[in-house]
Amino acid sequence: MNRKLKLDELQRDSLEEFKSKSKHKVVVVLDNIRSLNNVGSFFRTCDAFNVEKLVLCGITAKPPHKDIRKTALGATESVEWEYHEETTEVVKQMKSKGYQVYAIEQALETTALQDLEVSPEGICVVFGNEVEGVQDSVIAICDGVLEIPQFGTKHSLNVSVCGGAVLWEVTKQLISQKG
Amino acid sequence: MNRKLKLDELQRDSLEEFKSKSKHKVVVVLDNIRSLNNVGSFFRTCDAFNVEKLVLCGITAKPPHKDIRKTALGATESVEWEYHEETTEVVKQMKSKGYQVYAIEQALETTALQDLEVSPEGICVVFGNEVEGVQDSVIAICDGVLEIPQFGTKHSLNVSVCGGAVLWEVTKQLISQKG
Repeated sequence: MNRKLKLDELQRDSLEEFKSKSKHKVVVVLDNIRSLNNVGSFFRTCDAFNVEKLVLCGITAKPPHKDIRKTALGATESVEWEYHEETTEVVKQMKSKGYQVYAIEQALETTALQDLEVSPEGICVVFGNEVEGVQDSVIAICDGVLEIPQFGTKHSLNVSVCGGAVLWEVTKQLISQKG
Repeated sequence: MNRKLKLDELQRDSLEEFKSKSKHKVVVVLDNIRSLNNVGSFFRTCDAFNVEKLVLCGITAKPPHKDIRKTALGATESVEWEYHEETTEVVKQMKSKGYQVYAIEQALETTALQDLEVSPEGICVVFGNEVEGVQDSVIAICDGVLEIPQFGTKHSLNVSVCGGAVLWEVTKQLISQKG
């Protein structure tokens, strides 16, 4: 009979194993994220999907912080992260390194998430403030804007849930590229 | 120059329009979800992805509740929902209606999320408690267990983030089936 795996059956990497293994060429940028829960949640998502780096920008809070740790459940130790004041500087840097840089937004011109083709050169995805979204100055210099098709009455998904959808789509493509 | 859409440019459905439009044949079941934030977040995700029904089971809190409303941002009004004491009863009911029923878990036998093929007859996905996961008695009667491949040090993604990944995968397939 089918049953859940016990924790020791999951065979997760130790912190050392995780840090030494090669990462997916995926960089996640948080542009002025207000909620500590969302920051913590992104750490956990970046850990699960083997993301190369999480870049915290502007007003986004940095570890160590007890409310980030509460949601991140230790992923602040495993995931490589940096802080930068200006999101635009990070976008320029990632573009110069050859990463495809996408803002996740609802904008005049967008690529629907189902039409995304992840470049093997690496992808960088920028998630914005819970109310204001990604800054227009950031959108203006990204390679494109990725939109999650939505059908409801509300203006948008929670940003951590967006992270789940976008990073799953990216991860799935990277898994299938590896064959 | 590309820029974000303003709220009135998003052209979201009114509550009446949303309620009267046909839904994706997707039912979401929450099996003993403890956090009110997670419940609220699932309401918002179900609204965005045009889910037919959200079924709250066991200890999962029901609207009206101010902490659900805070996260759901009104989606408790737009999304059809029910409460049932026993998750197993809901699973049996959905199977008898012809829905494919999957628990989202890490189990002995699983289908990786990238191998999911959504049935046009409808799909029902069961998400479990933040610590205990989906009950083994529920897993035992599901048609299968869906697993999100994870590469990190932690035991699992946050359940709302899992919801984003799974419901995006389902929605994407439904969009492409419609052509």
